[in-house]
Amino acid sequence: MLPDYVAVVVRMPDGLFPILRQYSPAVEAYTWEFPAGLLEPGEDPAETCARELREETGLSAGSITPLGSFYADTGRLANRLHAFFVEAGNPEPGFLPEPGVELKLVTLEELCGLIQTGAFSLVSHIGVLLLAQLHGKVDCSRALSPKVADDSPLGT
Amino acid sequence: MLPDYVAVVVRMPDGLFPILRQYSPAVEAYTWEFPAGLLEPGEDPAETCARELREETGLSAGSITPLGSFYADTGRLANRLHAFFVEAGNPEPGFLPEPGVELKLVTLEELCGLIQTGAFSLVSHIGVLLLAQLHGKVDCSRALSPKVADDSPLGT
Repeated sequence: MLPDYVAVVVRMPDGLFPILRQYSPAVEAYTWEFPAGLLEPGEDPAETCARELREETGLSAGSITPLGSFYADTGRLANRLHAFFVEAGNPEPGFLPEPGVELKLVTLEELCGLIQTGAFSLVSHIGVLLLAQLHGKVDCSRALSPKVADDSPLGT
Repeated sequence: MLPDYVAVVVRMPDGLFPILRQYSPAVEAYTWEFPAGLLEPGEDPAETCARELREETGLSAGSITPLGSFYADTGRLANRLHAFFVEAGNPEPGFLPEPGVELKLVTLEELCGLIQTGAFSLVSHIGVLLLAQLHGKVDCSRALSPKVADDSPLGT
């Protein structure tokens, strides 16, 4: 059975959000995602959250807020996604992401823009961002650009 | 290969949102979800959207807004999730959902409450709700109850 995983919306002291892009063989595409990963045996989800954050971004977790446990696909995947919001500490000096992984720091407005264009295309992680909003951590309604406030479809 | 699927945030003329609950063998639990389903061969995603809406809720689609195409799990599932927002027409008189399926009409505040408690536990569909917000269709920031606006975790 597939282990549970975590996905983490992270805000840095300067208000930016780290996101990662790598090649996904399953979908044969590069996609932006939040820091995320599988639980190791015996690991608590909050421990996985702090570990993945450190390994993927070089950031330490200041405060960790659990946003609940969910499913990515109730029809096909039985494992749970544990969602977190983290206020990060300062970055580790000289940190480099793993080869093949691009690390980027974006504003909330830029993040919402990447979601709207489909460049950030992992809808389960988009759900974690709404969970962070429902917990009062971010407000994506302020990131709504006039360009997409009308009815113009982005295409499917 | 698994076909693509659609997931649909639907608003009725009275402002309520239909959601469905059924038993999911994969996760061995009852979960609330938006109307959703797999594309049939040769079907356009917008056609699937209208068909699933009719079959699952008895509602006809007034206007259909595509919110983009995404992935539920870039590590494991290659199929795409096509997200839609629909302004529904009036319900078909005497419509009954399929046996084993519970159909409920909720306000946006109730919907966000079910997400926060984990009763609506499909995080990919939660992502579709944020997409609807980013397209200016709903504003979940107004549905934030004071109870969850503090730091109290819901548990994982």
